[in-house]
Amino acid sequence: MRWATVRHPDGSTNAARVEADSYIELAAPDVGELIRQSAVGNDAAETGRTFSSGDVALAPVVVTPGKIICVGRNYMSHIRELGRELPDYPTLFAKFTSTLIGAEDVIELPADATTVDWEAELAFVIGRPTRHASPPEARDAIAGYTVANDVTERTWQFRTAQWLAGKNLEASTPVGPTLVSPDVVDHAEDLEVRCLVDDIEMQSARTSDLLFKPTDIVQYISEFISLDPGDLILSGTPGGVGHAMDPPQYLNEGNVVRTSVEGIGELVNPCRKH
Amino acid sequence: MRWATVRHPDGSTNAARVEADSYIELAAPDVGELIRQSAVGNDAAETGRTFSSGDVALAPVVVTPGKIICVGRNYMSHIRELGRELPDYPTLFAKFTSTLIGAEDVIELPADATTVDWEAELAFVIGRPTRHASPPEARDAIAGYTVANDVTERTWQFRTAQWLAGKNLEASTPVGPTLVSPDVVDHAEDLEVRCLVDDIEMQSARTSDLLFKPTDIVQYISEFISLDPGDLILSGTPGGVGHAMDPPQYLNEGNVVRTSVEGIGELVNPCRKH
Repeated sequence: MRWATVRHPDGSTNAARVEADSYIELAAPDVGELIRQSAVGNDAAETGRTFSSGDVALAPVVVTPGKIICVGRNYMSHIRELGRELPDYPTLFAKFTSTLIGAEDVIELPADATTVDWEAELAFVIGRPTRHASPPEARDAIAGYTVANDVTERTWQFRTAQWLAGKNLEASTPVGPTLVSPDVVDHAEDLEVRCLVDDIEMQSARTSDLLFKPTDIVQYISEFISLDPGDLILSGTPGGVGHAMDPPQYLNEGNVVRTSVEGIGELVNPCRKH
Repeated sequence: MRWATVRHPDGSTNAARVEADSYIELAAPDVGELIRQSAVGNDAAETGRTFSSGDVALAPVVVTPGKIICVGRNYMSHIRELGRELPDYPTLFAKFTSTLIGAEDVIELPADATTVDWEAELAFVIGRPTRHASPPEARDAIAGYTVANDVTERTWQFRTAQWLAGKNLEASTPVGPTLVSPDVVDHAEDLEVRCLVDDIEMQSARTSDLLFKPTDIVQYISEFISLDPGDLILSGTPGGVGHAMDPPQYLNEGNVVRTSVEGIGELVNPCRKH
């Protein structure tokens, strides 16, 4: 199964089931709410409207997740390349919902930001209330997988010990284009994750290189806080970010960022100074 | 003006206006929603029910803020005492809504957490949509002030470079008892902030010692992301936390934490292992 959140010309949104090139609209405002309703046994009805892929604008797959939790430093090859030890615990930080944009939306570069970087990531959405999860419960807690780019302002990220400012640029973080159920991608155990900027490949890695797998991340978070249907988790980015290049390279007006995860889909986001 | 969020026996909540010892119930589910409605020109009507202070249970003043942003290392005397330079930017991190509890609720100590600490703080709530705020706009963006305790698991906080895990214990962070409008406390420019554990004073400082004032914090955050009505901001804690004592001291089963800000009110929260 695949789902998306379609955005109508008036700005309102609906969840949709995606079949081949058709978006079958559902009576829920987004995929997050579809999951919340489903978690309490209410399956959203079809509205009767269907769109073709050329006719839809996509919103973030989940528009108002209760939590957005991101993982840092999670690809083993990248950690080793940096000369670091493999950590015992995932490095976690948060984003707010107004950072999220749709699969083809503009990435807004703040006028005074000169060090904005890309971070292609496998992301996933929680499907049921989860606390103190066992490994099987953690696996069952995942409603589906999607693609995200954890776009980051490096200067602002490192102004203090905590990364929040650089990780929370308004309208910076594409999520989509669809959410796919775990069976479609075999729980994302070995998928290619890529990022291209203006058609030049910057990042390419496989999710089999993730140190903390999605189920590990769910287990760890659920030790200290409840996870709820619709919560969005970004699993971390591999090597190849612009900040680590020599010389460093950053996003500029007019760049087009392509972010993909094999078997899930591609985000295509132009950058614009504002 | 003073407002609170009252919790009914069935778990539902309502905003209330507080006058002397009376809680005059309003037709909004919490103070956050009251502020959101007011921001679009809809003042919530009274429901006709009034409670006396002995009869009400209090929920977090804002139950589902869109953002909870906390500031670290913000009292100048405390920064100097640690031998650190005064920073140029506020250190920011996030909490999730299920960390929040009411003014007399139990602080839940996880069964395997042995280093849970107190952090008394002045907090405030945003009253209007705010982006790229000037100093006067930042001041006008504050709907009111309240009290919080940013209860923290120190071991979990320092497991990685990012503090999220230790800062996000489920049901750990009291916020209340009331929200007071800025005029009542002169924009919280010089109020005493205190924390007592089992009636022993652990923290005592004045908000005049804050390096980044509430308006500075609003200005800084609004440079990178929009602030919205109901968003909750915790302004940082002064010296006197248990982790910095010799030997360190932490919260245990049965401890009672009293957190107060002069002119606003007091939180009284017992600790319980669970």
